[in-house]
Amino acid sequence: MTHHAPRATSLGPGAEFDLIREMLARWDHRAVGVGDDAAILDVPRGDRLVASVDSALEGQHFNRDWLATREISYRAVTAALSDLAAMAAHPLGILVAVELPQAMRDALTDLADGIADAVDAVGTRILGGNITASDRLGLTTTVLGSAFAPLTRSALQPGHTLYITGRFGGPGAAVAAWTGGRTPTPEQRERFARPIARIREALWLAENGATAAIDVSDGLAADLEHLARASGVGIDVDLKLLPLTGGVLDPLAAAASGEEYELVIGSPVPVDAREFERRFGIPLTGIGRATSTNGEVHFRLGTERVAKPEGYDHFSR
Amino acid sequence: MTHHAPRATSLGPGAEFDLIREMLARWDHRAVGVGDDAAILDVPRGDRLVASVDSALEGQHFNRDWLATREISYRAVTAALSDLAAMAAHPLGILVAVELPQAMRDALTDLADGIADAVDAVGTRILGGNITASDRLGLTTTVLGSAFAPLTRSALQPGHTLYITGRFGGPGAAVAAWTGGRTPTPEQRERFARPIARIREALWLAENGATAAIDVSDGLAADLEHLARASGVGIDVDLKLLPLTGGVLDPLAAAASGEEYELVIGSPVPVDAREFERRFGIPLTGIGRATSTNGEVHFRLGTERVAKPEGYDHFSR
Repeated sequence: MTHHAPRATSLGPGAEFDLIREMLARWDHRAVGVGDDAAILDVPRGDRLVASVDSALEGQHFNRDWLATREISYRAVTAALSDLAAMAAHPLGILVAVELPQAMRDALTDLADGIADAVDAVGTRILGGNITASDRLGLTTTVLGSAFAPLTRSALQPGHTLYITGRFGGPGAAVAAWTGGRTPTPEQRERFARPIARIREALWLAENGATAAIDVSDGLAADLEHLARASGVGIDVDLKLLPLTGGVLDPLAAAASGEEYELVIGSPVPVDAREFERRFGIPLTGIGRATSTNGEVHFRLGTERVAKPEGYDHFSR
Repeated sequence: MTHHAPRATSLGPGAEFDLIREMLARWDHRAVGVGDDAAILDVPRGDRLVASVDSALEGQHFNRDWLATREISYRAVTAALSDLAAMAAHPLGILVAVELPQAMRDALTDLADGIADAVDAVGTRILGGNITASDRLGLTTTVLGSAFAPLTRSALQPGHTLYITGRFGGPGAAVAAWTGGRTPTPEQRERFARPIARIREALWLAENGATAAIDVSDGLAADLEHLARASGVGIDVDLKLLPLTGGVLDPLAAAASGEEYELVIGSPVPVDAREFERRFGIPLTGIGRATSTNGEVHFRLGTERVAKPEGYDHFSR
């Protein structure tokens, strides 16, 4: 399914098209020009195109008994949109490929609604997608955005200050509770089930000095390493400074907690954290700085040096 | 994995990154700017952006014992690129999400090579992607292109002539042979395993009169219906005129054969089929015309009216 007039042109017959029609009915005005072979859209003149793809697969990225269907699809699309935040790109739209188990046929409207929630949250649109029968639920989301001067992972320089948005540890604590047979607190569960793509925050940060950024998907510690290596600089951070999600006590666990979708940014100039908090209702916290020790990250708790808190790696467990 | 400097910036540690590094090594210069949160690219000034997504999943779209791994990934990416051909768009690049069974770890280089074959065939690049552990092999490919005046499914008008590129029936015959426990002929197998995205052909056709197009993925008969409905016109075609792949005898079976990735185009002016064949080495055949009978397709064999040859629907079998 894809493109052209606003709203679907007529689709052909067949069960796959019935599923598409059902999703389009839920999406309403949010689906733009679905029905041709491809979507057609404009990139603002002077801007560059920004594109990224992200998959969320049952058993790999989530379990169906942890979340409602609508939360699963919201979260999958938001995780992909978070990559646009990391570049400070304005979203142009998404394309979503759904793998749907036959037994979940009745959950299709919830799945469509969660996708709609995610595009509504950042004010964007659904440009196309497809749907395939499968044994387990999966969503692969491509996000398209535009930016005049994108933030990158490779723009951090020695002397830059490192800031993080929001509070850490919620998703890790929620997953630890579920896998340990316990129930996470509502706040921790919410941070796992309803992450927020920090696009508005990123655009403001880019306008106010930030030059480098990464979003936290593998865990703060692991993503700081990615940032350091991509920029070829060192990083020195004090994890004692991390703002923690309620009920999270260990900053090392919080620094290993994946799928936070908060931002780490690097800025050559001080950023007004009070103004940021006033606008967005979440903290902006300076946690350290970039150094000239090539590619290495020094983790501290106050003055005490600590080992890298271990993050999340789908292929190693 | 994604963006920025030409060639990967350093990636972090972990098994998933080892897999990405291995694919990047195979892709070499074909992977542009992988390593940031998203790819950054330019759309030619004045052009519109064209985007589409397509999935190829083991057991659903292919069986691993029918094809070599390198053919599977070539075919998956080519199927997605075919949607750019249907719009007469110049490819800007692809993003590919791979679902990889642990047991296929050693086949990763073949998988990467097949993706490289597909982008080489149309002269484009790999802009990003990701890789996830899975029970069965899957590739979801997003294609990005640009076009000044895209062909669409909705631009067919009464009186337009309908042309098709290439020969039909090969993929259907190959699948029928495999599912019947026989071996397809080399020519039929080749049409299934190594389809060609008709991008160069589409660009030439758009310059030489074509206004409407669709690529044949569901079968010629089904895709003619999609075209008729999207344009709100009728279509009258003589299936006796179909050029057939060697060894295919039944034009009705050829019109139901899916995943041909040939093009159907509609043109208000005659197109020089001899010049087309001289340039591209495949036939261009007029098979009928658009009529004013709203949304209906009349299938004929010569003068005899026939029922719609049934196509392929993943969800109904």
